[in-house]
Amino acid sequence: MVVAYEGTAYAGFQLQKNGPTIQAEIEKAIMKVTGEPIHIVGAGRTDAGVHAWGQTVNFKSATKIPFLKFQKALNSVLPRDIVIRLVTEATPDFHAQHSAISKTYIYRFYHSSQRPLFERNFVYYYPYPLQIDKMNKVLPYIIGEHDFKSFQASGSLIQTTIRKVNHCSLDVTEVEIRLIINANGFLYHMVRNIAGTLIQIGRGEINGEDFQKIIEAKDRKLAGPTAPAHGLCLQEVIY
Amino acid sequence: MVVAYEGTAYAGFQLQKNGPTIQAEIEKAIMKVTGEPIHIVGAGRTDAGVHAWGQTVNFKSATKIPFLKFQKALNSVLPRDIVIRLVTEATPDFHAQHSAISKTYIYRFYHSSQRPLFERNFVYYYPYPLQIDKMNKVLPYIIGEHDFKSFQASGSLIQTTIRKVNHCSLDVTEVEIRLIINANGFLYHMVRNIAGTLIQIGRGEINGEDFQKIIEAKDRKLAGPTAPAHGLCLQEVIY
Repeated sequence: MVVAYEGTAYAGFQLQKNGPTIQAEIEKAIMKVTGEPIHIVGAGRTDAGVHAWGQTVNFKSATKIPFLKFQKALNSVLPRDIVIRLVTEATPDFHAQHSAISKTYIYRFYHSSQRPLFERNFVYYYPYPLQIDKMNKVLPYIIGEHDFKSFQASGSLIQTTIRKVNHCSLDVTEVEIRLIINANGFLYHMVRNIAGTLIQIGRGEINGEDFQKIIEAKDRKLAGPTAPAHGLCLQEVIY
Repeated sequence: MVVAYEGTAYAGFQLQKNGPTIQAEIEKAIMKVTGEPIHIVGAGRTDAGVHAWGQTVNFKSATKIPFLKFQKALNSVLPRDIVIRLVTEATPDFHAQHSAISKTYIYRFYHSSQRPLFERNFVYYYPYPLQIDKMNKVLPYIIGEHDFKSFQASGSLIQTTIRKVNHCSLDVTEVEIRLIINANGFLYHMVRNIAGTLIQIGRGEINGEDFQKIIEAKDRKLAGPTAPAHGLCLQEVIY
């Protein structure tokens, strides 16, 4: 299933003892519709406050309800801030996380002297001057296969910190700067740490050459702060 | 001042004993910034759940704080769902309601098989088939000076129900139908009653000739139902 949600009211995607989660809401909804106690697998474990337009989940069900009817039934019992966008059949070996070829995240900065109203839960409000040309100049350093350890939340324990970034661009409108990044995988907090570092570059606190050194150093302490969760959205998962 | 707000959490613009209002929040904010117990006058008394992008308010203050600083101070103490977009000086005889030449309202229908997620508090979700060409055909009957009594909430007591509609159009995108209407004034529930009647026309329940008769009859009972508040937004007040 392809799932969209506003993460504001949730403690993240993944099941937790304390606080409501997207996973728990979807599993409850499936239980209501099919009577089956099912665990779903998500493509990405989005954090508290992070949104999704194209989160993807898989599960096994014995239900005979046709896809479109099943989707409508789920949407009718789910909270208003979670929407099932697509239900379809997958091959038996499909795994929402491991089968993914790449994922696209979008990080939204609201860059205006006036604070956001309608967008306020989906953007990081940054009213201070930014040199966007400087931010654009470092994007080529991000694209390609690199060890992104400098942009991984400290304390993470995983096998490899090498990821391949296929696309990284800034889409600038009158009041927004959107960081669009597609990669074969993401380290924990990777997009938010890149976003926070880009802000420092835009402010002139880090220059382009330093940025390349930050990547090469593989040291989280050299990169910028983690940008807030609510600016982030899991836009699409590609299989 | 030009004020934008999301009306979802409020019992409407106008001060009330029960429930939070936009007016009360703005007056509290002015009190915090200037220490003055002030009553503001709004251009339109939006109902509970109705939003505004260009609500306009006036008041008298003895404050010496420059406009931009005053605006920033207000925005820093106001709730996140209310934003002051502009502060400026008005002539002594300015009255936000009586000085208005015209107002523009937008009513948003979300017309898709999939329910809205991010837009859910700002659109009326209408998933059923609509013949938009039929809706477009009756718009010329709305434009011009007419007695709009058929579209006024029953029980209203006002001097005249004649209003002049300068502009009335439908802006149709992939998932939305937006009714954009500008008039020299609006009767109570007028936009929502026109919106509800347009839906009946789109469904084929009322035809174009009947629509003209509904206007001429000056009888609320002949027009369609009142469309829900949360689809409506006071877009702009023109002086």
